[in-house]
Amino acid sequence: MQEIGELAARLREFAAERDWEQFHTPKNLAMALAGEVGELVAEFQWLTPDESRQVTGDPEADARIRAELGDVFIYLTRLADLLGVDLLEAAADTLEHSALRYTPESYRGSARKAPPLKRPENR
Amino acid sequence: MQEIGELAARLREFAAERDWEQFHTPKNLAMALAGEVGELVAEFQWLTPDESRQVTGDPEADARIRAELGDVFIYLTRLADLLGVDLLEAAADTLEHSALRYTPESYRGSARKAPPLKRPENR
Amino acid sequence: MQEIGELAARLREFAAERDWEQFHTPKNLAMALAGEVGELVAEFQWLTPDESRQVTGDPEADARIRAELGDVFIYLTRLADLLGVDLLEAAADTLEHSALRYTPESYRGSARKAPPLKRPENR
Amino acid sequence: MQEIGELAARLREFAAERDWEQFHTPKNLAMALAGEVGELVAEFQWLTPDESRQVTGDPEADARIRAELGDVFIYLTRLADLLGVDLLEAAADTLEHSALRYTPESYRGSARKAPPLKRPENR
Repeated sequence: MQEIGELAARLREFAAERDWEQFHTPKNLAMALAGEVGELVAEFQWLTPDESRQVTGDPEADARIRAELGDVFIYLTRLADLLGVDLLEAAADTLEHSALRYTPESYRGSARKAPPLKRPENR
Repeated sequence: MQEIGELAARLREFAAERDWEQFHTPKNLAMALAGEVGELVAEFQWLTPDESRQVTGDPEADARIRAELGDVFIYLTRLADLLGVDLLEAAADTLEHSALRYTPESYRGSARKAPPLKRPENR
Repeated sequence: MQEIGELAARLREFAAERDWEQFHTPKNLAMALAGEVGELVAEFQWLTPDESRQVTGDPEADARIRAELGDVFIYLTRLADLLGVDLLEAAADTLEHSALRYTPESYRGSARKAPPLKRPENR
Repeated sequence: MQEIGELAARLREFAAERDWEQFHTPKNLAMALAGEVGELVAEFQWLTPDESRQVTGDPEADARIRAELGDVFIYLTRLADLLGVDLLEAAADTLEHSALRYTPESYRGSARKAPPLKRPENR
């Protein structure tokens, strides 16, 4: 697959073939997303941050994590599709907002949280 | 933006300009992803499944949810980029696997969980 | 067991016997908690709210959910113990705060979110 | 408060006074729990494991984390109460099971995952 739109279309078809639209409410899909992210987090829970950078060197862990990233992306794409949200546009807007909020001058090397932007940039 | 690869490249640049690569370990990014998914889930927690289908009719909720989907997608893309995983490929593999596991004949209209596939299809 | 303090003491001993204190940082325990809560959420993801009220009528689902509640409570207790937080006191404080924020007169039958309290009650 | 049962009783009363039982389905409470755990995880996301051990030295972070632990415990207690699960008993059962699965001899100093127990100990 080359594009998110194509994935979204396949997921629509996948649900329709199984009469699963009844289960795919935004509420339920947000829960499914949370469940899959929980599995992903669990892969990293006992690793040090440095070990987590090397995790793909273990073929079994690599396969599990790749499958979990696939699961997370599937539910995220399906949820966004149902809500009519373009993920790339939403991410671009978030990034633009973050660039104003976290200027390189003030936040270089710092993980502290910025205060909300003043309007009208604030969302 | 048109493609996930472009988003990943922007996020790399965004982190580099702020000297944030030190914070962006897979472990930390998985946590950030979990935090954002928690915010997304909270948007739906008191809604009925039907109400959750209508949530974008409320402009304030719609803007919040769109921003949260952007946040989730950003951390997911950044994490996958650091781990060298192509999200669309991973999703396609997951979907292929699910198509074998959840055949339309056996799972039409059913939300029950399938047993794992037997090897070699199993992962 | 009759008390949280007794559970916390057993968990300390359990970790010490296995030399697991090195893994039990607050960061790691918060991740483990998130992973277990993800499993709990997954139990309910395709159920309607009404079906979720009946879930303990299925002995297998009941056993899984009970075990997951146990897992969640264990990590929560261990995390709070390491941070020196008394869970019952913290809950009582939260509840007192919520009682001011969500007065029965203004929030009866409503799931809307209250604005933050003004200081000094605000935290 | 001295006991979980007392907290559960107060939460029942709190919900009844606000006519909130209609929102407090197990499904919704599991989501609320996931949302609060997401906030807790976010507190630790950019900290190193060592920094996370010192987090309560920062009075503001300490107050936020304490409040979030209170929130998590409240939703966990409310959910368990609705499902008729005694959290201390469930935790004791989990711990007994883990003691068989993770023997000190085999798992000292190791964070690797144990295989499931064979029946009848397995659950």
